[in-house]
Amino acid sequence: MSNLKSPILTDLYELTMMYVWFLSDTINNQSCFDLFFRSCPFQGEYIVAAGIDDALLFLQNARFSREDIAYIRSLNLFDESFLIWLSEWRFDGCVHAVDEGTVVFPGGPVFRVSGPIGSCQLVETALLNLINFSSLIATKAARICMVAGFDTVMEFGARRAQGPDGALSASRAAYIGGCTGTSNVEAGKMFGIPVKGTHAHSYVMSYPSELDSFRRYAEVFPQASVLLVDTYDTIFSGMVHAIEVGLEMKRQGRTLAGVRLDSGDMLSLSKQARKMLDDAGLSDTKIVASGDLDEYGIHTLKEQGAPIDLYGVGTRLVTGHESPAIAGVYKLSAIEHTPGHSEMRMKVTDHTEKISLPGIKQVYRSFDGNGMMTGDCIELESAGFDVPGYVPLLTPALRDGSIVQPERSLEDIRNRVMSALQTMPPDVVRLMHPSRYPVSIGPALTKAREKMMNEFTG
Amino acid sequence: MSNLKSPILTDLYELTMMYVWFLSDTINNQSCFDLFFRSCPFQGEYIVAAGIDDALLFLQNARFSREDIAYIRSLNLFDESFLIWLSEWRFDGCVHAVDEGTVVFPGGPVFRVSGPIGSCQLVETALLNLINFSSLIATKAARICMVAGFDTVMEFGARRAQGPDGALSASRAAYIGGCTGTSNVEAGKMFGIPVKGTHAHSYVMSYPSELDSFRRYAEVFPQASVLLVDTYDTIFSGMVHAIEVGLEMKRQGRTLAGVRLDSGDMLSLSKQARKMLDDAGLSDTKIVASGDLDEYGIHTLKEQGAPIDLYGVGTRLVTGHESPAIAGVYKLSAIEHTPGHSEMRMKVTDHTEKISLPGIKQVYRSFDGNGMMTGDCIELESAGFDVPGYVPLLTPALRDGSIVQPERSLEDIRNRVMSALQTMPPDVVRLMHPSRYPVSIGPALTKAREKMMNEFTG
Repeated sequence: MSNLKSPILTDLYELTMMYVWFLSDTINNQSCFDLFFRSCPFQGEYIVAAGIDDALLFLQNARFSREDIAYIRSLNLFDESFLIWLSEWRFDGCVHAVDEGTVVFPGGPVFRVSGPIGSCQLVETALLNLINFSSLIATKAARICMVAGFDTVMEFGARRAQGPDGALSASRAAYIGGCTGTSNVEAGKMFGIPVKGTHAHSYVMSYPSELDSFRRYAEVFPQASVLLVDTYDTIFSGMVHAIEVGLEMKRQGRTLAGVRLDSGDMLSLSKQARKMLDDAGLSDTKIVASGDLDEYGIHTLKEQGAPIDLYGVGTRLVTGHESPAIAGVYKLSAIEHTPGHSEMRMKVTDHTEKISLPGIKQVYRSFDGNGMMTGDCIELESAGFDVPGYVPLLTPALRDGSIVQPERSLEDIRNRVMSALQTMPPDVVRLMHPSRYPVSIGPALTKAREKMMNEFTG
Repeated sequence: MSNLKSPILTDLYELTMMYVWFLSDTINNQSCFDLFFRSCPFQGEYIVAAGIDDALLFLQNARFSREDIAYIRSLNLFDESFLIWLSEWRFDGCVHAVDEGTVVFPGGPVFRVSGPIGSCQLVETALLNLINFSSLIATKAARICMVAGFDTVMEFGARRAQGPDGALSASRAAYIGGCTGTSNVEAGKMFGIPVKGTHAHSYVMSYPSELDSFRRYAEVFPQASVLLVDTYDTIFSGMVHAIEVGLEMKRQGRTLAGVRLDSGDMLSLSKQARKMLDDAGLSDTKIVASGDLDEYGIHTLKEQGAPIDLYGVGTRLVTGHESPAIAGVYKLSAIEHTPGHSEMRMKVTDHTEKISLPGIKQVYRSFDGNGMMTGDCIELESAGFDVPGYVPLLTPALRDGSIVQPERSLEDIRNRVMSALQTMPPDVVRLMHPSRYPVSIGPALTKAREKMMNEFTG
C-alpha cells in the first residue's frame, strides 16, 4: 500500500478554497463529491478500479505534521486561526466506494465522498493521484493478461517506472490486474507479490565466455535458471551455449528452466529456439520473451504461433505507454447551504464531455442467469432501486474516520479481478474495436439532470 | 530529493547475479558501468539530465534494513553468509557524473559507476529509476518552456502523476527544466519550489451564484485572485462575472490578477477575453490557460497570436505523455578479472542500436568563442584529451561512500539549465524537425571498439 499520510500532498488551490469557506463559515457545509472516470484508457472499454484501498487508508490516517503547518504558515496566505484548524484536522466524512479491483465504466462514481466541504475538497488531489495511477496500471495489466493468459506475465518495470513509488504502486496494480509476479524486490517485501528474475547482460559480460557464465549460473540456481541468450548472438551464441548447459543439467537429472529472448524478431527467434531445444531433447525448457512488449505485440506473436511460454513486460506496462494518465476526476455533486437541505450540483460547461451528473448517486449492475454482466445503471440513491438481479456497486467503505470495509488480501483481490473479467461480455473486452458496455442513466437522475440543464440554459 | 534509502528497490536479478559472483569469489572484482541514454524522448534531440543528485544521495545512504534482510531470507534463494554480506553492505564504489541539469545527448555516459562489481550491479535498478524519470520530466519541461517562455509555465500535475512520489519527483524535475512553480504543496515544502493556485470548479459550484463565488474569493485574496471562468459558460457567464468583480476591485484601487481558461477553443476564448478585459479597462488582468496543454499546443497558440500570459501544464508534463519513459540504460564497460588488469566490455548484439561503447570513458564538450556549444566527443579517459576549449562533462561526484560534489540549490540548478539551453545550437533545440547535435567518438575509443567488434565477429 502507499504509505501516504500527510494531506500536504495537495494542490495549493484546495487550501485557498478552504480558506475562503473557513472565513465565510461555510467550511462545514455538507457536500458530496464523486470520483469517476471520464473515459477509458488504451482505446479500451473498461477500467479495473484500483488504489481504492490506498485511498481509504490515506483518509483514515491523514494528518498534517507540525512541519507541514510551519511550511503552510510560511506561505503568508492564511491567518493563524485557519492554521490551527488545519493542525487539528482529521478526515471527518464518509466514503462509499467500489471494491478494490472492480471492473468499472466511465461516468459512474467509483469513490463517493460526503461530509464537510472543506474536508472533502482538501483530499481531492491525493485521492485522484492514488486512484488514477493504480487504476491505469491495473487496467493495462488486465488488458495484457487477457491476451497473454493470466499465468504467463511478469512485471519487470522498476527501472523505467515514474519514481520509486511509481514503481511500487505499479507492481501492486499490475499484480491485481493479473500479472503473476514482479522483478521488484521491494514490491515483494511490501505486498507479498511473488518476485522473479535471473540475470542481465552485464552478468554474461562479466565472464570471459558466455558459456562459463551460463554454466556457473545453472550451478548456483539449478532449479530456476532462465538464461538470457541475446548478449552476443541469440541463435549462434546464446542458444548454442544454453543448450550445452541444458544438456549438462539433463545428464545430472536436472532441467534448464528456460531461456530468455530480449531483442530481435521474437517470432522467428522463438521458433528457432524452440526447434533447437526440442531437437536437443530439452522440450521442458521454456521460452521467455521480454523487451518492449505490450498487449498488441503479444497478440501478434500469439496469432502467428510464436512458441513463447512466458512474457516479461516492463516499460509499456508500468507507465501506461500510449495512455500514461487516466481521465479520473472529482466533482461536486451536492451541497447543503442550510442544514438538511441538499442541493444538487453539476458542471455545465461549454465542453459537453466535461458535464458531470448531479446528486448523490449509486451504480447498479445487472447480471444474466449465467452470472455474466449485462449492464450498469447510474441512479440517484434517494430514488431507491430495488430491481431483482441488480447489485449496488458502491458500499460503505469509511465512516467516522475509520475504514469499515473488511480487509482483503492482495491475492483475493487479484482472484476477484480475474473472475470478474471472465463475466464481461466478450465484445467489450476484446482487443480490437471493442463494443461499449451498456451504462444507462436511471429515470430519477435523468429527470434531475434535465431540470438542471433547463435552469441553466433557460 | 527522493528519500530512497534502501537498496531493496532493486530487481531480483541483481541479487541473483550478485550471489553467483559471491559464491565464485568474484563479487569484488573491479568494474565500471555507464548509465547513458540510447535516444532522446519526444522526437527531440537533447536531454536535460536530472535525478543525478537524488542518485548520489541514494548511493551515500543506501543500507539494507533488518526487515529487508528478513524478507530476502524468506525467498529461500540465498545462504546465510550472503545475507550477512548484504546486511553489512555499503556502496563502496566511485561515481563520476555530469552536473544535475546538464544538457546531454545519446551515447555518452552521464553517470559512471566504478568499483566492486557486486556493488555496482546492485544499484542499477534504483539509479535507472531515479535518473530516467527525472530526466524525462526535466526534458519535457525544458521543451515546453523553450516554446512558452521561461517565466510563464506552472506545473499542475499532481492529480494525474504516477503515484505520490511520481508527483514530487515530477514537480522537482519540472522546476529544474524551467517551470516557475508548482501546484503541489508538498513539493513546495520539500524543495522550496514556489507554489501557486487559486480555485477549482467545485469552489464556484459551492455557491448559489458564480458572481458571489468570485466576489468572495477576491475579498479573501485581493492580491492574487485568478478566477476560473469556465464552470458554466466562459464568455457569457465567467468573463462577465470576472469583469464585474475586476471593476469592483479597481474601484477599491486593486487589480484582479487574472482569469483562467480551462476548456474550449483557447485561441478564440483568449482573444475574446482579452478584448472584454481591455474594453472594461482591466488591461493589467492576465490570462492564464490550462487544460491538456503541451509544447505543441502552446506553439500553435503563440503562432496564432493567442493573448495568453501564463500556462498551467499538468498531465502532459508530469507523465511525459507521448514518451512516458526515457531510454536510459546501465551497461558494463570494463572489468578486472585479475587485479590491475582491466578488460573492456561492450554489448554486441543482433540489434545495432543496442550496442554499447566499451571502456572507461569521458565526454568532452566544445564551445565556440561566443560560448555556444559546438559538439561533444566521447573518448577513453586513458587516452587523455587535452584540446583547448574542450571541457570534460563527467566530474568526481562520490568517493569512498561520500558525495564530493559541492551542494547546489535547486534554483542554481534551474538557472544553469536555462543558461545552458541558451548556448545550444538553435537548430538542435527547435520544436519541429530538430537537427542532431554533433557527437563524435574519439580515435582511441574508435580503435578499441573496432578491435572488439573484430574479435567478436572474427
